[in-house]
Amino acid sequence: MAKYVYLFKEADGDNKALFGGKGANLAKMTSWGMPVPQGFTITTEACTKYYDDGEKIVDSVVEEIFDALAKVEADAGKKFGDEENPFLVSVRSGARASMPGMMDTILNLGLNDVSVKGLARKTGNPRFAYDCYRRFIQMFSDVVMGSSKSSFEKIIDEIKEAKGVKQDTELTAEDLQELIARFKAFYKEDQGQDFPQDPKVQLIEAVKAVFRSWNNPRAIVYRRMNDIPGSWGTAVNVQSMVFGNMGDTSGTGVAFTRDPSTGEKKLYGEYLMNAQGEDVVAGIRTPMTIDHLAETNKAVYDQFVAIASRLEKENKDMQDMEFTIEEGRLYMLQTRNGKRTARAAIKIACDLVDEGMITDKEALLKIEPKQLDALLHPQFNAKALKSAKAICQGLPASPGAAFGKISFSAEEAVERAAKGEKVVLVRLETSPEDIEGMYAAQGVLTARGGMTSHAAVVARGMGACCVAGCGALKIDEDNKLLYINGVKYTTEDYLSLDGSTGNVYGEKIETEEASVSGDFARIMEWADKYRALQVRTNADTPKDAATAVKFGAEGIGLCRTEHMFFAEDRIPAIREMIVSTTEEGRRKALAKLLPMQREDFIGIYEAMEGRPVTIRFLDPPLHEFVPHKEEEIRELAANMNLTYEELKAIVDNLHEFNPMMGHRGCRLSVTYPEIAEMQTQAVIEAAIAVSKKGINVVPEIMIPLIGDIKELKYVKDVVVKTAERVLAENNAKMAYHIGTMIEIPRAALTADEIAKEAEFFSFGTNDLTQMTFGFSRDDAGKFLNEYYEKKIFESDPFARLDQVGVGKLVKIAIEGGKSTRPDIKLGICGEHGGDPSTIEFCHNVGLTYVSCSPYRVPIARLAAAQANILNPRVKPAPMSTRYIQEN
Amino acid sequence: MAKYVYLFKEADGDNKALFGGKGANLAKMTSWGMPVPQGFTITTEACTKYYDDGEKIVDSVVEEIFDALAKVEADAGKKFGDEENPFLVSVRSGARASMPGMMDTILNLGLNDVSVKGLARKTGNPRFAYDCYRRFIQMFSDVVMGSSKSSFEKIIDEIKEAKGVKQDTELTAEDLQELIARFKAFYKEDQGQDFPQDPKVQLIEAVKAVFRSWNNPRAIVYRRMNDIPGSWGTAVNVQSMVFGNMGDTSGTGVAFTRDPSTGEKKLYGEYLMNAQGEDVVAGIRTPMTIDHLAETNKAVYDQFVAIASRLEKENKDMQDMEFTIEEGRLYMLQTRNGKRTARAAIKIACDLVDEGMITDKEALLKIEPKQLDALLHPQFNAKALKSAKAICQGLPASPGAAFGKISFSAEEAVERAAKGEKVVLVRLETSPEDIEGMYAAQGVLTARGGMTSHAAVVARGMGACCVAGCGALKIDEDNKLLYINGVKYTTEDYLSLDGSTGNVYGEKIETEEASVSGDFARIMEWADKYRALQVRTNADTPKDAATAVKFGAEGIGLCRTEHMFFAEDRIPAIREMIVSTTEEGRRKALAKLLPMQREDFIGIYEAMEGRPVTIRFLDPPLHEFVPHKEEEIRELAANMNLTYEELKAIVDNLHEFNPMMGHRGCRLSVTYPEIAEMQTQAVIEAAIAVSKKGINVVPEIMIPLIGDIKELKYVKDVVVKTAERVLAENNAKMAYHIGTMIEIPRAALTADEIAKEAEFFSFGTNDLTQMTFGFSRDDAGKFLNEYYEKKIFESDPFARLDQVGVGKLVKIAIEGGKSTRPDIKLGICGEHGGDPSTIEFCHNVGLTYVSCSPYRVPIARLAAAQANILNPRVKPAPMSTRYIQEN
Repeated sequence: MAKYVYLFKEADGDNKALFGGKGANLAKMTSWGMPVPQGFTITTEACTKYYDDGEKIVDSVVEEIFDALAKVEADAGKKFGDEENPFLVSVRSGARASMPGMMDTILNLGLNDVSVKGLARKTGNPRFAYDCYRRFIQMFSDVVMGSSKSSFEKIIDEIKEAKGVKQDTELTAEDLQELIARFKAFYKEDQGQDFPQDPKVQLIEAVKAVFRSWNNPRAIVYRRMNDIPGSWGTAVNVQSMVFGNMGDTSGTGVAFTRDPSTGEKKLYGEYLMNAQGEDVVAGIRTPMTIDHLAETNKAVYDQFVAIASRLEKENKDMQDMEFTIEEGRLYMLQTRNGKRTARAAIKIACDLVDEGMITDKEALLKIEPKQLDALLHPQFNAKALKSAKAICQGLPASPGAAFGKISFSAEEAVERAAKGEKVVLVRLETSPEDIEGMYAAQGVLTARGGMTSHAAVVARGMGACCVAGCGALKIDEDNKLLYINGVKYTTEDYLSLDGSTGNVYGEKIETEEASVSGDFARIMEWADKYRALQVRTNADTPKDAATAVKFGAEGIGLCRTEHMFFAEDRIPAIREMIVSTTEEGRRKALAKLLPMQREDFIGIYEAMEGRPVTIRFLDPPLHEFVPHKEEEIRELAANMNLTYEELKAIVDNLHEFNPMMGHRGCRLSVTYPEIAEMQTQAVIEAAIAVSKKGINVVPEIMIPLIGDIKELKYVKDVVVKTAERVLAENNAKMAYHIGTMIEIPRAALTADEIAKEAEFFSFGTNDLTQMTFGFSRDDAGKFLNEYYEKKIFESDPFARLDQVGVGKLVKIAIEGGKSTRPDIKLGICGEHGGDPSTIEFCHNVGLTYVSCSPYRVPIARLAAAQANILNPRVKPAPMSTRYIQEN
Repeated sequence: MAKYVYLFKEADGDNKALFGGKGANLAKMTSWGMPVPQGFTITTEACTKYYDDGEKIVDSVVEEIFDALAKVEADAGKKFGDEENPFLVSVRSGARASMPGMMDTILNLGLNDVSVKGLARKTGNPRFAYDCYRRFIQMFSDVVMGSSKSSFEKIIDEIKEAKGVKQDTELTAEDLQELIARFKAFYKEDQGQDFPQDPKVQLIEAVKAVFRSWNNPRAIVYRRMNDIPGSWGTAVNVQSMVFGNMGDTSGTGVAFTRDPSTGEKKLYGEYLMNAQGEDVVAGIRTPMTIDHLAETNKAVYDQFVAIASRLEKENKDMQDMEFTIEEGRLYMLQTRNGKRTARAAIKIACDLVDEGMITDKEALLKIEPKQLDALLHPQFNAKALKSAKAICQGLPASPGAAFGKISFSAEEAVERAAKGEKVVLVRLETSPEDIEGMYAAQGVLTARGGMTSHAAVVARGMGACCVAGCGALKIDEDNKLLYINGVKYTTEDYLSLDGSTGNVYGEKIETEEASVSGDFARIMEWADKYRALQVRTNADTPKDAATAVKFGAEGIGLCRTEHMFFAEDRIPAIREMIVSTTEEGRRKALAKLLPMQREDFIGIYEAMEGRPVTIRFLDPPLHEFVPHKEEEIRELAANMNLTYEELKAIVDNLHEFNPMMGHRGCRLSVTYPEIAEMQTQAVIEAAIAVSKKGINVVPEIMIPLIGDIKELKYVKDVVVKTAERVLAENNAKMAYHIGTMIEIPRAALTADEIAKEAEFFSFGTNDLTQMTFGFSRDDAGKFLNEYYEKKIFESDPFARLDQVGVGKLVKIAIEGGKSTRPDIKLGICGEHGGDPSTIEFCHNVGLTYVSCSPYRVPIARLAAAQANILNPRVKPAPMSTRYIQEN
């Protein structure tokens, strides 16, 4: 029969899955003979069983709990509910992964009308005992029974008024007894039954409450943010109470074995004498640094230092410890690997290697890849920031820090930036026409839109700082004025944005550029040594490409050509093409775009210095390039020598019911092969041009939105014919590759066919996710929150790849592709390419590379290394070398 | 080495795949000693090779052709290009499936400046010979070389003017020689080379032209309409010319062994003496019936009758034969199974069984299931139709015939129909709000929209007659007037619509109801005997359900509950629900809908008499239920005690970028579980009500748009809880099943998981096709034509299931579903459920049933029988019995 309850001294300290992090560490500390208040752990399996059994604890588990309780009581020589020597416990959650503060805790359990007297007698401090009891009633009522906190607060206020006192601390033991009577009366009224006097009943109810708290809304949100599966469940730790508030020889504190902010190697922590844990947190009294303990109680201090040192060595990582001193005796309440800043994580990892405590492989596993993000964007100068105060806050839509003068339109931003001015683009919301302005600006601030709004998605792709959905903004576009909380800002005023916090400042705060150097560079070197997956970047401009190379990108996995078309000097030509009704007219317009596209590619090739570049052909539906408001259509019509009605008819005809599933991607090239011809010509001519400068490029042309082999064949024929013509005209020879996105489910399902024509696949997991789930990212926001709340989804499938469904399609496509073309190159270029859990999946299924935004390249390098350390595969030669050999 | 050219006497008459239908039949007739002008067949493999080799005929195949030619010349004792006894041939296409008139034919090949003299001498008719030659030059130039026909016509006109004659026939042999000289001069000018005098060059070019014609646009369209794969290719038949125009003892004709219109058993055909095939077709002279031949040439007639009789016996089917009499001798040019009307197909199939020629199984295989459609809708009374004349024509959007007085709005149609008036609904285009009016009307006529417009799709679903996109309509809705070609029609005028032809008549034409009786009923009986697949129907109303039962439906596979919500008396309640911001408000509105839904279900259960009924819960996005035009919003706001602004904000908030991928299906029930509760209550209460009348119903509740097991679990819990509550309240016991649509790719991919909760799957192949291909039906129309023209798609994936891509998902889902729940019920309820090729697929992959519109039920029964005859599987007990046993 399965066992669900283990004494600390019985439990396996290495099995966090079963005992939770807290339980496992308590078991370990116990086994090392450290002073741990004893108790027992109810396993995570008991939690999942509780849910499987319809949210109840079955009798056999209750029995196990009571058996364990009896043993702990016996060891402690105390008894639950005893008038002489009462046994009190804390009941705490303890999940496999640390979820600080997300779940429930009940302290002082075991107190009732009888045992409170025992506590009073034993401590010689009746006021302390009755205060514990009234706190326990409050906590139990709130956490376990769901009574409202405010009712209890109201009763306290009434008593204080009756007694004529202001502070809780002024209430005497007798006052508190009166208060307890009132509390119990209220409890009976509210719950329809007496406050439970049987500590065993209290205990079982508390355990249930902790189990329930695994699924409270904040825990669900936390799990989603941290990729923790809902199926894990939490363990419950029942531990003898020790009191840090028993007088001046008692105290309580927390400490880290190294500085969690800088990583510096020194004991770092604070404590308070005559206090409980909550007092340290509450901040009413100022705690003392841990060093001070050496002066006041050298023995305890030395004991603590020795324990801390051993804990760090045993766990091979920086420790975060809680301790209590009860009447001069040290007790360790828990230890865990400490949370730390990105900077500290890197320093600690390097130091531990240098100290010989861990290997470089182990060091890599100690750093959360996502954390690196904080080191990769410009940051405010710490000193300058200290004196600044945020004037409002929006959503932290894209990290980094930026300052600039306010610009109310994309055009204005482009113009002013061209003159060397630093501007921040402030918009109600952004649209594709704003792209150039977003690019020119230092940062973007919008009044509307969420984390997946246009502004947020595009800014993240660019690595630009963005604060979105800042409701405090009142924008008067006509008069170029911005009001925030009644204060007026003009185009001459500075704003500073913090894309990592969402803070907006009404002043200029200097920023500092990110760079990969020192310990960070060392970590990246180790990562490159161990990873098998190559890391490319999504970049549409020479600037992005150069940034990515700086961060270690080995090539471009996705260069979106349409972003170039939105530029102010190009959009007239693309619009001219769209409104042309003849192939001749379209060719005329495309001829204007050709030299610009060629220059784009030359710039990108040069920035990439011979690394492979994958260029995706025109993808979005054409209506994204035309205006839709009457006045804008009128203006454009006048410019194009069309009547308003003519242009309106063209625009209306471009309307689609479901643009996501409309006339876009390769479908455009099927209808208008001349677009693919122009783009091919630009790609090849640019490669010829840079080859004359000694940069050898093997262009990779990527046809988007393929769903059928014949579609690809059709477009490929156009591309090959054009490429061969251009090469012949230039008397040049050059390798080039043609491949496709796998972003339509049918492409994945028929990948064996498609691989006959495609030399490489790049998984476009944004669209693939949309089509596989059957919801569009633009619309899903309306109901996904409901899905998280109702535990239907645990994470955002647009942020973290759905490995079950979408992942199955990816696997089908890989299998199909390899069966036809064993050496097919496989990559991913959706936004998931920068997500560590997705990168692990990509490694495991055998992709050649991941491609992500420039600022995520170091994250991807680390995540790829971790994946290969955990599940090694043969490492291919670096991509750049292979490509050059192929020439 | 592969052989690509076979003499008729060498070829295998049973191998249509290799020799094409025409070639195989010529080989058979030759083997039976019938008088066939000899020749050879170039195989379909030669055609595919031609394309594989880059559209050229390789030397080895050319050699084979010349070898065969030499043998045929030797047997005939004639020579290509000979001055004495010239050998002339016809070059004709001959595909595996008959594609009449779609590809190219060249006659009289072998004529040149020399051989024309031989022909003149041999026939003693120089005018005939030169006329043959000039026709050949024209045909060769047009068909093979692509010169424009009109240029030749112009030259003829010039000669006629110069000679002062009106008719071609008035030109003399000398005139024709002059014409030939002019033709050749033009040819040289147009083509830059002389008209080829070498008959072998003529031959190879002609063969190439036939190969090319396999991919001309009309052949591609024909293949798409008839499900013929483009990979098959066409064979080419090179056959000695015989002449029916050599004088009064020569002639040519076509005949059928049975009447192709009625199926009556008698030789049916016509012929013309002194004529070539094209003269029979041209209709300038009136041909004589085949019986007449008995009087003029008894010997030839008897010979022909004997041959016809043997051909029918050998081929076990009605034959369509072409013959020529050259100077008193009969030649058979070709035979094939004759095309026939649906009525004839049924009669012939039954007669052949009664005559002992074929078995009932074989009879079933002789009927094209799609053809039955013509017999399943009301038809105009044939006599009444004869005297009527169409006033305009639209698209034949939904078959059937209807008459009624003109009604310009859905409301009016409902009102007048309620009073017993027959009306035709005439609209610019229809929208979901018109559904009730469409239902009340006899037929629907729209001015705009194509075959997949709202009107067309909904009408087909209802089995209602519809003519769509009739551009001649000028509708003056305000004054309730309709103008067609300048003629005014009022609401008191009758229109008659033919949904099978698109014809519109400005008068009342009586119609006749369809019924399954006589031979048709016999065929259906046989079909039921042999099929393994069950056939259900998609029906939303008692009327549809009753029609489907009449046509043999064994249950309802899809009852769409939202169609009921659009009814005039319900839409206020659903709108009230939508605008409610509280659960309480929504429940109040839903309470109003409950009794109506319950009545709907009672009516449907009663019509189905105990057969299983699958009810799909609310599916469409809520914005479909609210108005979007300002005046309509204002009106509704006034009715709902809201301000315009309030309602406008609600409507705007419902807007979705991609409604197809938005907040709909089960996602609505996740957000508003109270909708699922109301629908469950209605389903169960209705079942309880009818069970009291002795009708045992096992309701099947179908949750749409599931993508994840947890989604289904969530909604299922709501359904089960409600159902159990309702049953308990009514003190009733009842089986009910809960299943899901598989219409989201992710549902198919994770079907093993989903089957844990779903008792049945119904493949919603409309949405599944959209998501798998990544294009929406509403938008794809804009580019799919381009896809057909460029041969990327061969058929419309919304009409015929894409068995490769979507089919793979279906197979994955079946495999997954069965692995978890071996007895899972599997059906299909997309529009594909009525498509014969899809039905065959459904049979082969092991579905339990297909569900289609009522009018397609007989088609599905036949198609299912054919599938099981071709690929037998164990037949399950009839569904209704099994269901009753389960109770």
